Amino acid sequence: MARNQDESAVRAVVDKLVQAIRRKDVDGAMSVFGPDVVSFDLGPPLRHGGGDDFRRHWQALFDAYEGTIEYELRDLVIETGAGVAFVHSLNRTAGTLRGGMRSARWLRWTACLVRRDDQWRIVHEHLSVPVDVPGGKALLDLQP
Amino acid sequence: MARNQDESAVRAVVDKLVQAIRRKDVDGAMSVFGPDVVSFDLGPPLRHGGGDDFRRHWQALFDAYEGTIEYELRDLVIETGAGVAFVHSLNRTAGTLRGGMRSARWLRWTACLVRRDDQWRIVHEHLSVPVDVPGGKALLDLQP
Repeated sequence: MARNQDESAVRAVVDKLVQAIRRKDVDGAMSVFGPDVVSFDLGPPLRHGGGDDFRRHWQALFDAYEGTIEYELRDLVIETGAGVAFVHSLNRTAGTLRGGMRSARWLRWTACLVRRDDQWRIVHEHLSVPVDVPGGKALLDLQP
Repeated sequence: MARNQDESAVRAVVDKLVQAIRRKDVDGAMSVFGPDVVSFDLGPPLRHGGGDDFRRHWQALFDAYEGTIEYELRDLVIETGAGVAFVHSLNRTAGTLRGGMRSARWLRWTACLVRRDDQWRIVHEHLSVPVDVPGGKALLDLQP
């Protein structure tokens, strides 16, 4: 497959995930990940894997919001090789949490993909905010 | 280049970075990154780029430690395609800070590489700890 076809296919995976997050569609979100995904997520633990735990994690995230979720990617970079790709971007997520509190922040996002049986899937993702190490604080309000 | 040769070359880049961190060798650390690296680092800002700022950042990190730095990678995964690769691991960093305080923690690390002119270089890295979002805390003491 040519490089620009691979890039289009990877971009389609990213778009599918973004659309799934916006409408809180767990099946849609799960469909872009490989079964053996290794996730370094915003919250603990240090690392989690795929399967039912991963699905419950997404369900809990979506359930925390009252309505739909705003999710926008800025400065998306896509690099594709033969069967291996990575993407990174700054993602703004916002919405109204159950209870009525407004939540809005910027996250750093890296996703790593492999192509198996002609399907690109995310096999690793890393989502975070910077921290103030001496103060022990999460820096949740930084702007790009 | 065959896949296992690529994997060996990427592993050598990772080893070179680990050795450079342990002996606080800024030139050695800088040599594994592309000039246009996009870094999502443990501390702020959300993102930084390469060049002199990146170098000063590494120098400041190394200067914060009194002696050498302990740096160990656990569960390193390497995926290589044609000209594109990614790695991820849990990295334990420890040492004595200037002033005498002991520092030790586990970090999540993702590095994305491209091969240009037959040299593999890190063009993106992402280093973080999980955070407690409601509490606004950095979770610096998690164990794998």
